[in-house]
Amino acid sequence: MKKKLFNLFVLLVLFLSGGIVNAQDTYPESGKMEPNMSEFWLPQPEIVTPGNIMTNSAPSDAIVLFDGKDLSAWVNSKDGRSAGWTVNNNGTFTVKKDVGDIQTKESFENFQLHIEWCIPKDIAGSSQSRGNSGIFLQNKYELQILDNYNNKTYSNGQAGSIYKQTRPLVNAMRPPGEWNVYDVIYTAPIFKDDGSYRMPPHITVLHNGVLIQNNTTILGTTTYIGFPKVVKHGAGPIRLQSHGDASKPISFRNIWIRKL
Amino acid sequence: MKKKLFNLFVLLVLFLSGGIVNAQDTYPESGKMEPNMSEFWLPQPEIVTPGNIMTNSAPSDAIVLFDGKDLSAWVNSKDGRSAGWTVNNNGTFTVKKDVGDIQTKESFENFQLHIEWCIPKDIAGSSQSRGNSGIFLQNKYELQILDNYNNKTYSNGQAGSIYKQTRPLVNAMRPPGEWNVYDVIYTAPIFKDDGSYRMPPHITVLHNGVLIQNNTTILGTTTYIGFPKVVKHGAGPIRLQSHGDASKPISFRNIWIRKL
Amino acid sequence: MKKKLFNLFVLLVLFLSGGIVNAQDTYPESGKMEPNMSEFWLPQPEIVTPGNIMTNSAPSDAIVLFDGKDLSAWVNSKDGRSAGWTVNNNGTFTVKKDVGDIQTKESFENFQLHIEWCIPKDIAGSSQSRGNSGIFLQNKYELQILDNYNNKTYSNGQAGSIYKQTRPLVNAMRPPGEWNVYDVIYTAPIFKDDGSYRMPPHITVLHNGVLIQNNTTILGTTTYIGFPKVVKHGAGPIRLQSHGDASKPISFRNIWIRKL
Amino acid sequence: MKKKLFNLFVLLVLFLSGGIVNAQDTYPESGKMEPNMSEFWLPQPEIVTPGNIMTNSAPSDAIVLFDGKDLSAWVNSKDGRSAGWTVNNNGTFTVKKDVGDIQTKESFENFQLHIEWCIPKDIAGSSQSRGNSGIFLQNKYELQILDNYNNKTYSNGQAGSIYKQTRPLVNAMRPPGEWNVYDVIYTAPIFKDDGSYRMPPHITVLHNGVLIQNNTTILGTTTYIGFPKVVKHGAGPIRLQSHGDASKPISFRNIWIRKL
Repeated sequence: MKKKLFNLFVLLVLFLSGGIVNAQDTYPESGKMEPNMSEFWLPQPEIVTPGNIMTNSAPSDAIVLFDGKDLSAWVNSKDGRSAGWTVNNNGTFTVKKDVGDIQTKESFENFQLHIEWCIPKDIAGSSQSRGNSGIFLQNKYELQILDNYNNKTYSNGQAGSIYKQTRPLVNAMRPPGEWNVYDVIYTAPIFKDDGSYRMPPHITVLHNGVLIQNNTTILGTTTYIGFPKVVKHGAGPIRLQSHGDASKPISFRNIWIRKL
Repeated sequence: MKKKLFNLFVLLVLFLSGGIVNAQDTYPESGKMEPNMSEFWLPQPEIVTPGNIMTNSAPSDAIVLFDGKDLSAWVNSKDGRSAGWTVNNNGTFTVKKDVGDIQTKESFENFQLHIEWCIPKDIAGSSQSRGNSGIFLQNKYELQILDNYNNKTYSNGQAGSIYKQTRPLVNAMRPPGEWNVYDVIYTAPIFKDDGSYRMPPHITVLHNGVLIQNNTTILGTTTYIGFPKVVKHGAGPIRLQSHGDASKPISFRNIWIRKL
Repeated sequence: MKKKLFNLFVLLVLFLSGGIVNAQDTYPESGKMEPNMSEFWLPQPEIVTPGNIMTNSAPSDAIVLFDGKDLSAWVNSKDGRSAGWTVNNNGTFTVKKDVGDIQTKESFENFQLHIEWCIPKDIAGSSQSRGNSGIFLQNKYELQILDNYNNKTYSNGQAGSIYKQTRPLVNAMRPPGEWNVYDVIYTAPIFKDDGSYRMPPHITVLHNGVLIQNNTTILGTTTYIGFPKVVKHGAGPIRLQSHGDASKPISFRNIWIRKL
Repeated sequence: MKKKLFNLFVLLVLFLSGGIVNAQDTYPESGKMEPNMSEFWLPQPEIVTPGNIMTNSAPSDAIVLFDGKDLSAWVNSKDGRSAGWTVNNNGTFTVKKDVGDIQTKESFENFQLHIEWCIPKDIAGSSQSRGNSGIFLQNKYELQILDNYNNKTYSNGQAGSIYKQTRPLVNAMRPPGEWNVYDVIYTAPIFKDDGSYRMPPHITVLHNGVLIQNNTTILGTTTYIGFPKVVKHGAGPIRLQSHGDASKPISFRNIWIRKL
């Protein structure tokens, strides 16, 4: 009798925790992948020397995310406190590796984003270990930042790639020490109730004025290992990645966004 | 005999007027429209003051269509001879109304186009009679040029509209005397054998760095009167329109195109 | 004093002509169109004799909208009371013209719809006056029903057209007295805050098993006169049109819908 | 001298391993994957019992690929000679495993395809080893055929999946011994000169009248191991796969195609 009661208790706990499932609901997991299985080196995008675009002030309807003075629009991604990256006195700010990623206080859906970034002139290293950072759109989908001026890496991991998904159409990098510009048009995904995409996200990117992503379909969230994942989400912040290269961190300036 | 001759005459008239077809092929024509039936004034796009973008030199893989010196990449649209518009000694050129439209010698399919245009400072007139011109993509689809700085017109006819189809998302005009920039990403249509679109053309436009067309579907060729038409075509030139305002013609500079 | 009177007169004229509103809100209206301006007869879709598909019972996850017995899933569109059309004792129901349109009680967004309809064997009339009805998706976008078996009409108004927008790819009509089947895959529009489409509606239709609309973009709500309108809306019912031909009304049977 | 010989040896080894290329063309290869890395079991599509659709004869404009009598529209994929599968005297034909795949003589681009298939009533085995076959569209993209009536497998490998890419929206299988129907609307890809997709292929599939693929983007050619590949191609045949289960082969009937 005690046994019975105990069993009932177990059943109840399982039931409340959603743990009672039919045996037939146990499924194999997919094989574990290695990072380099989703890294494709060929074809390498052609190198294009971009034209000369000067710094662009923000349109009147833009939300200025960095105006050269402070990071008040940003928080630290770990603890939600102050961003903690270094604001320089020349209207730029610089990654501070040990404090981790930063992200906008505000969340966004569809937008046009302008952002400028600069690889330090004395950058060292190769492939992914050379000025690596990234912009996570809606905190989920990474537009890669890297020094790919005379630095080869897998093409779906180079600057302007949708990281580990889609390589840029061309390589329009400026050399270290010069400022690169991304102009991004981002269309947020729309989800079905079951969490799958009714419409996946789309992205168009100009790198230094040169088209590198042309209404590219984003296949899922950025993952370092394995296939992109489809994960239901709502509005999300812009997150900037703090990645390796602590001694030679990259800098940003002139960031603004327009809701679409 | 007279009857016969008369019949022949009727047949000839019908033939010359395209009227001899099989009885079963005679269909009513659509009602004749007036120009203002496809002009929609509301909603008016919000006014956005664009940021400051400086003149942009061409990327290394671009075809330069005007480098400030001559119109050698262009011909007159009427006779295919020299363009005949006025090249100024400040790196710009100006519409010469009496010679008509000009178009590129080369034909294009999918492309990124950069083009700058300037309304004269002392422009006069209102609505469509104020700095009117246009860029015909593949010689068929017009991206409107007009002075809409403090000048209202129907919204699907203002600067940055796909003329008589789709208004711009916002009005990002600079005032007369200042240079406007269009950055255009154009996806050419693909046709079925029967002449209908398998995929219609699409267009993205930044006006002075502000998104005004976001992968907009182009519905058919630009017509001043009536609905857009679906007309099968292949590669086509970029055509610049010579339109009214002979006394105060608009100017262009810094035109380049990249095949996609 | 004369000046004042004249001003009053001007004000009166402006007022009567709708011209006195806030200065910034005064815009011309578009020209008034006639119905035949949006009726296009050519090209006429090719005639295809459909294969033999038998009546299809509903999948297990479908909402059955008519099971042959009663119209309990429907209401009258005018007053929301009982549908009022005639349920026959052979598992079909028939339009009752004087009571007007009927619509589903439930509202839908994205769906797969199966519906069968039959033109009476002794139908008379021509062009649009021959078995005219229609299915309004989300109460806004009409998929046309008409007898086009040996009956010509404007091609964007014939059976299977998105009425006054897009003609069917082919004409797969069965003759009067036989049952026609529409299998519809409908993707609801998604709107921006300003009421414009972020993604317009799309539709795929099989008519008697033959593809007649292939992921067609719907341009706006169905209007008898003028251009389609873009009108923001949420979920909406399926509405069946009561149209002309009171003496020879059409019938329906076997209607089911699956939410997507 | 010894040094020279050693160098020669190194060169030889490099040559034999494909390692002598221009230095700038040497790139790492992606990591080798295992088949189960691209097999995703969850979520499992919901089970839907399809309605009753009867055999469908071909529309008048269809190309009949199998009319119940002979395989004259097909050839063997290995040698281009006669198909070699077994035509039965009940209007069906059956896979003959040892002769391999068969494919249509004619090549296709965009099409509507109707095809019926039947798992033998006494089928045995589990997961992928149970009635496995497939339809390769344009000889490249596999729409999976399998018995998934009370047989679980990875969801992107079950009947109606775009194999190893996209699972069906639902599982609309009929039990072994009954006929399944696929109605497929296929939009061929369009390629850029560099071999990448300008527009990837798209597919809509009804399985026994139930929508299971809704204008799904096909990501690349079907591969058993690893990511889909983007491979430039033109028109291609329909290929039917001869796969395992030699003792209990599946059957087909009533196949027709309409060019779109």
